[in-house]
Amino acid sequence: MRYRKIPDETVRRLPVYLRAALHLSGRGVESTSSQGLAKLIGVEPWQIRKDFSYFGDFGVPGVGYNLSTLIARVNRILRLDAGRKAALIGVGRLGSALLAFPGFRMYGLEIAAAFDIDRRKIGRKRSGILIEDVAAMTDVRARGISLGIVAVPESVSQQIVDALADAGVKGILNFSPRHVVTRRGMKVITIDIAMDLARLPYYVPAG
Amino acid sequence: MRYRKIPDETVRRLPVYLRAALHLSGRGVESTSSQGLAKLIGVEPWQIRKDFSYFGDFGVPGVGYNLSTLIARVNRILRLDAGRKAALIGVGRLGSALLAFPGFRMYGLEIAAAFDIDRRKIGRKRSGILIEDVAAMTDVRARGISLGIVAVPESVSQQIVDALADAGVKGILNFSPRHVVTRRGMKVITIDIAMDLARLPYYVPAG
Repeated sequence: MRYRKIPDETVRRLPVYLRAALHLSGRGVESTSSQGLAKLIGVEPWQIRKDFSYFGDFGVPGVGYNLSTLIARVNRILRLDAGRKAALIGVGRLGSALLAFPGFRMYGLEIAAAFDIDRRKIGRKRSGILIEDVAAMTDVRARGISLGIVAVPESVSQQIVDALADAGVKGILNFSPRHVVTRRGMKVITIDIAMDLARLPYYVPAG
Repeated sequence: MRYRKIPDETVRRLPVYLRAALHLSGRGVESTSSQGLAKLIGVEPWQIRKDFSYFGDFGVPGVGYNLSTLIARVNRILRLDAGRKAALIGVGRLGSALLAFPGFRMYGLEIAAAFDIDRRKIGRKRSGILIEDVAAMTDVRARGISLGIVAVPESVSQQIVDALADAGVKGILNFSPRHVVTRRGMKVITIDIAMDLARLPYYVPAG
């Protein structure tokens, strides 16, 4: 089954729905309504129904959404159903925090390799993952790794993104606030933590 | 001057525009067009013009947007013009990375205090900030702190958010993936790193 092109904002919400569905399912709940989901995650019920309509509205009137169907469909759309491996580049403070972070597994994601340029770190393990020389990054695709997580200083982020592109990695989560130029067919999601903090005061009068 | 209610998605993009404007301004550029900004940040020109229309369309045909006006207006709307102080709660791996992170200053934001529950950490300094006992968090407002950054384990995030609310903090950046219940008048922005990674495979066929 092919799906229609889904807006980025809907794609952004799909993991939120997935997390909520996994949470409910883990507590033995079998189905829920858009209102039930809405309460849990703070998205309007109409928005949830609209988002679900992109992959066939499978809700049953009076019953709601079957959670195992919901989980399977969202996993399939997000291409998480096969499980995905990522390489982390940059094992500094943030990189170490990411290696220790248990939350990726919920989505079938695994940090399967870690790379750094620092000779004092190379060869050591952090959270059970061997830190390898960044020069060895070229063979990641052969190791089943299709995603990259970039947690390096701003000054080298472009260089690392280019090296990942050369290695055949097409999806990157970039924690460097610097804008990076990407090649055709690549997707880079930039997480700028300062930017998220910067929009908070809008909602909070000073005093 | 009062502004109209601005959609959340526009508020989300304002720091992006601000960063781009600061970047250009720092290189001596005085004005730019929506096309010039668009190229830099990957947002469509029409979207930029629409977002700016919420706070008075101050673009000049044939000249574009004056950058110092743009910076001043966005800073004012985001309430960043006075400078804002935040308290960090939880000085683990992620918290330490946040303390060392230089990117907040660009937006006039400062982590002015750090709290933890671990007696081995309390009294020490990390990135020049004294780590205090979380029990001392009650007086943060008196110290001019209006924002909280929560980087604690999931199991205690609700407790910490409640303690921050009791201390009068109304804006929180929450790095715990757990949904927290908030009081009226509070704004919590949750950063779920796994969720950002989870939407990446959608754009990247496996293989």
